[in-house]
Amino acid sequence: MWITVGAIIDGKKIAAKIREGIKKEVQALRDEKGLIPKLSVVLVGDNPASVSYVRGKEKACVEAGIESVVHRLPSTISEAGLLDLIAGINNDPSVHGILVQLPLSRGLNETRILREVLPSKDVDGLHPVNMGRLFKGEDPLFVPCTPLGAMELILSTGMDVAGKKAVIVGRSNLVGKPLAMLLLAKHATITWCHSKTKDIAGETSRADVLVAAAGKPGLIKANMVKPGAVVIDVGTTRTEKGLTGDVDFESVKEVAGYITPVPGGVGPMTITMLLKNVLASAQRIGEKAPEGPPEVQAIIA
Amino acid sequence: MWITVGAIIDGKKIAAKIREGIKKEVQALRDEKGLIPKLSVVLVGDNPASVSYVRGKEKACVEAGIESVVHRLPSTISEAGLLDLIAGINNDPSVHGILVQLPLSRGLNETRILREVLPSKDVDGLHPVNMGRLFKGEDPLFVPCTPLGAMELILSTGMDVAGKKAVIVGRSNLVGKPLAMLLLAKHATITWCHSKTKDIAGETSRADVLVAAAGKPGLIKANMVKPGAVVIDVGTTRTEKGLTGDVDFESVKEVAGYITPVPGGVGPMTITMLLKNVLASAQRIGEKAPEGPPEVQAIIA
Repeated sequence: MWITVGAIIDGKKIAAKIREGIKKEVQALRDEKGLIPKLSVVLVGDNPASVSYVRGKEKACVEAGIESVVHRLPSTISEAGLLDLIAGINNDPSVHGILVQLPLSRGLNETRILREVLPSKDVDGLHPVNMGRLFKGEDPLFVPCTPLGAMELILSTGMDVAGKKAVIVGRSNLVGKPLAMLLLAKHATITWCHSKTKDIAGETSRADVLVAAAGKPGLIKANMVKPGAVVIDVGTTRTEKGLTGDVDFESVKEVAGYITPVPGGVGPMTITMLLKNVLASAQRIGEKAPEGPPEVQAIIA
Repeated sequence: MWITVGAIIDGKKIAAKIREGIKKEVQALRDEKGLIPKLSVVLVGDNPASVSYVRGKEKACVEAGIESVVHRLPSTISEAGLLDLIAGINNDPSVHGILVQLPLSRGLNETRILREVLPSKDVDGLHPVNMGRLFKGEDPLFVPCTPLGAMELILSTGMDVAGKKAVIVGRSNLVGKPLAMLLLAKHATITWCHSKTKDIAGETSRADVLVAAAGKPGLIKANMVKPGAVVIDVGTTRTEKGLTGDVDFESVKEVAGYITPVPGGVGPMTITMLLKNVLASAQRIGEKAPEGPPEVQAIIA
């Protein structure tokens, strides 16, 4: 049996291709229904990484023909003030997607605030209703963007994950948990490792699909990888050497069948999936007028 | 190192002890606040197993001092009719818990109907909001009863599951998925196996905690179990020999450290956890009047 070794999954290229398709669909929505998809981003404070992420999202929206509005607020804003702002955007029919950039400033209750976003506009997929539907396998309105992008990269290798062992290192709500559900829906056997796991190598070395999302540079070394495995590096830590993944790329690419680089792997896919979610929301609204007040919609959602 | 072998986890005894405590708390609630916890059960059709389960729940409620009402409906009821009935119970302030007995008759959309139950009365823990909060680690109002009971039995052994390998065979919304989240919250390393998993024995034989919830009698044999493991059998299939678990009890008890029997293991714990959920709901309502209309509560919940 031949085993592919060291094929690099080009996230940038795959993302570019998907973005082309999104751009065409946005154009079609405009031409046919006069509808322009619109994203509202809420950015609190001046964390440089957050500011840079938000700029990247604005730029990508513009390129795809999606309108974006950034509500930039001082870190001194009260929770009540922020909740009011979100309620206003919830009720604005011209907005199809709402994204609250994380992390929020100290003193703001992230859990409470994310629950205020209307599930039908929750393009980050983090509302408990959407996460609950993902968890239950009940077709959520939105799935978080990073795991959605990582899943596309896994599928791009052509591997049928059904019955295969997928090991996910990391159990965050943003990545590890939702990605497990996407892989489970495709019938992979799932293992979640994390900081408390005693024998990480014992799990990773048996993985057909290995996802590293721990935020620990160089955590995954060649001897922890099964020959021929698909290795997806979601880790992004800013170090002196620049953006660094969780996977020791140079050594692991000699063992893995397929591997994503950092940068240029999962990163470009995340924003692409955000665009896709905003487009899907606009298409849904374009298809059918919402029934009843937003509160009731939220429950039915 | 000594390894405990073949200790039988007596679910009946553990359940009885917990029920005594619940009975006392129910009495206290009645004495101090004049409040009687009340469960409404919705039973559609005449599936004999469902009828028998519901009778068991009624009996347990009475014994604990909890009021129960069973709404028994013909299998010909329309979905709209059922949704109306649930809406009425949602709005009845004397009811603290609502349980829709599954499975529902053909033609009724289970997903849609379970979403109608107010999250704050969802004592089965199956509403997407409660499942989403469980999935996110955000303190759900209710957790499904069977996994809650299974978790109590695991903890009864005194094992600290942090960092240990927990393998769950089965990925249902009623058992496998929520139990994984309970074990993950206690920092176990989680593996989900299911019908598509290629090497189930390869996973189960390395498990410190093994949960079988596949509904396949005799699936787990002694050679698939790690010596000293805690083995929890959630499987219950009605066979000619009576209620049969997924674990080949006689052979596995020679290898496992702790093992639950069927019947007398997880079964008695399930109803006990239902009583606990109804009591908790009544205690919550007793503490604080609900704010705003139920729709808004549902979102905040």
